[in-house]
Amino acid sequence: MIERYFLPLTRGRAEVAGLKDDAAVLQIPKGYELVVTSDTLNEGVHFLVGEAAGNIARKALRVNLSDLAAMGAKPLSYQLNIAFPHMLDEAWLAEFSAAMQEDNKAFDVFCSGGDTTSIKGGHLSISITALGLVPAGCAVRRNGAKLGDLIVVTGVIGDAYLGLKALQNSLNYEGAIGRYLMPCPRIRAVDIICEHANAAIDVSDGLLADVMHIAKASGVGAEINVDKLVFSKDVAHALDGNIMQVQDILTGGDDYELILAVSPVKLPILIRELKNIDLNPMVIGEFTSNISKPPVLKSKTHRIDVKLLGWQHFQ
Amino acid sequence: MIERYFLPLTRGRAEVAGLKDDAAVLQIPKGYELVVTSDTLNEGVHFLVGEAAGNIARKALRVNLSDLAAMGAKPLSYQLNIAFPHMLDEAWLAEFSAAMQEDNKAFDVFCSGGDTTSIKGGHLSISITALGLVPAGCAVRRNGAKLGDLIVVTGVIGDAYLGLKALQNSLNYEGAIGRYLMPCPRIRAVDIICEHANAAIDVSDGLLADVMHIAKASGVGAEINVDKLVFSKDVAHALDGNIMQVQDILTGGDDYELILAVSPVKLPILIRELKNIDLNPMVIGEFTSNISKPPVLKSKTHRIDVKLLGWQHFQ
Repeated sequence: MIERYFLPLTRGRAEVAGLKDDAAVLQIPKGYELVVTSDTLNEGVHFLVGEAAGNIARKALRVNLSDLAAMGAKPLSYQLNIAFPHMLDEAWLAEFSAAMQEDNKAFDVFCSGGDTTSIKGGHLSISITALGLVPAGCAVRRNGAKLGDLIVVTGVIGDAYLGLKALQNSLNYEGAIGRYLMPCPRIRAVDIICEHANAAIDVSDGLLADVMHIAKASGVGAEINVDKLVFSKDVAHALDGNIMQVQDILTGGDDYELILAVSPVKLPILIRELKNIDLNPMVIGEFTSNISKPPVLKSKTHRIDVKLLGWQHFQ
Repeated sequence: MIERYFLPLTRGRAEVAGLKDDAAVLQIPKGYELVVTSDTLNEGVHFLVGEAAGNIARKALRVNLSDLAAMGAKPLSYQLNIAFPHMLDEAWLAEFSAAMQEDNKAFDVFCSGGDTTSIKGGHLSISITALGLVPAGCAVRRNGAKLGDLIVVTGVIGDAYLGLKALQNSLNYEGAIGRYLMPCPRIRAVDIICEHANAAIDVSDGLLADVMHIAKASGVGAEINVDKLVFSKDVAHALDGNIMQVQDILTGGDDYELILAVSPVKLPILIRELKNIDLNPMVIGEFTSNISKPPVLKSKTHRIDVKLLGWQHFQ
């Protein structure tokens, strides 16, 4: 079972010794630092019961890679810990492994080990620790935002919220569903971020919450101009049809775009370089001296009920 | 909750940035390689339902550190992923955190991150990925055993098996119970192992199984002289009283002593140095050209029923 479905995830790397040692031995190139992050996804909590094995594999890996991207790090390897609630299902494992192999290739990463166990209680749990590399001293932190830095998002948000809602209510928003099931960690942007951003975070808790994480860590305030948010076709349609509200876009998580703090002088080159790798960045506000919670929200076109922003989730 | 119970596990290390970034950034000293390993422990499978929080913490960390020791690596940090089945119990968390802090100090390691999640199904799952350091090129593998190398164990075994049995049947073997609940990873021995051992593994699956892992990876056979096994007082008493059999010692796992392959010329210095750090190593056999499964078992005093050796567990 290990040989058939998990060994291929190591991509034959000598460091892993065919998963036959007690541990893997990894070389860290000179001049680099190691970035390490973990995320656990539990069935019925972080993904729907009965979700396809391939989607679980991709999501579990990608949310970890997104954390690496937010630090400006490139993926090196990951440890894969799966607790199975029942007898191993070969078809499930085959689909899981195939999807993981595709993503390994897409993001140039390999499995350096892990543990497969059985768990009582009937619900799958998958825990990944991802290892990444960043040039020494270049990691991008949450606490680097400066007064006057602009708030840049690397792409449209709100789709993950809509995707989950569409899945739960059988609505026809395929694009948004895809974004929810299969987030796209912005790994390709890490060199640009290291070079030009003062702070970064990925949108996992929600736009407002994650902007606040940067603001709080950096000791500044934040002002968001909601009118600057560009929406995907699906989200624009859902807003028009009252299927979702603007505050859902501000508070819904799981989009895994990056929020960046960028000084005005570096903004043009950052935007140009992000567009060069086919991202669609938008400038949605700036970090200010006005420390408030929630951050100042400006809009001429949207009515936002601050009471509905659900701050209790991320205070 | 994070601040009160998990932040202290980081021991204030700057690399972790107070658990406020998306990931930790670790420096790997020049001339060292990174060793990485993972183990998951699930309630009702790897530890008893209702086990004390402190024991769970220690066991989860220590089984990972034991894997590092078996590679000849010193602990650096660990990622801690806990999936809680119900509302967080402050007393449980306090006990868990206190035990983890003690072990952090004892083994000079810190928590570099992780994830706390909720899980359905009613059973706790704890998954740790441990990171260690080894001088470049010095990692000890399973595949290094040579013909004629001696099989050395770093201490008595069988206690973990007896300890579990004692817990399950309310038998009075406190020492063995302690060994089962709180394995002692042989971290202090790593310099000696790197210097003098050709191969190493920790006794997690059972003595015979783990000797076979080395033999198979190294392409040699193994012969074990059962009469050379020294037993703890508890195990000797249980053997005398027919509470356990010799084959239980050969197949019971979870002792977390190390099995080493050592060339005869290096044996005296290895034994002396292990004794210098208060270990009680024993030479129990050698790696031979006679490749067989199970390995050849010699004994003048014990009758061993090979059929009871339970090979199906580790083939």
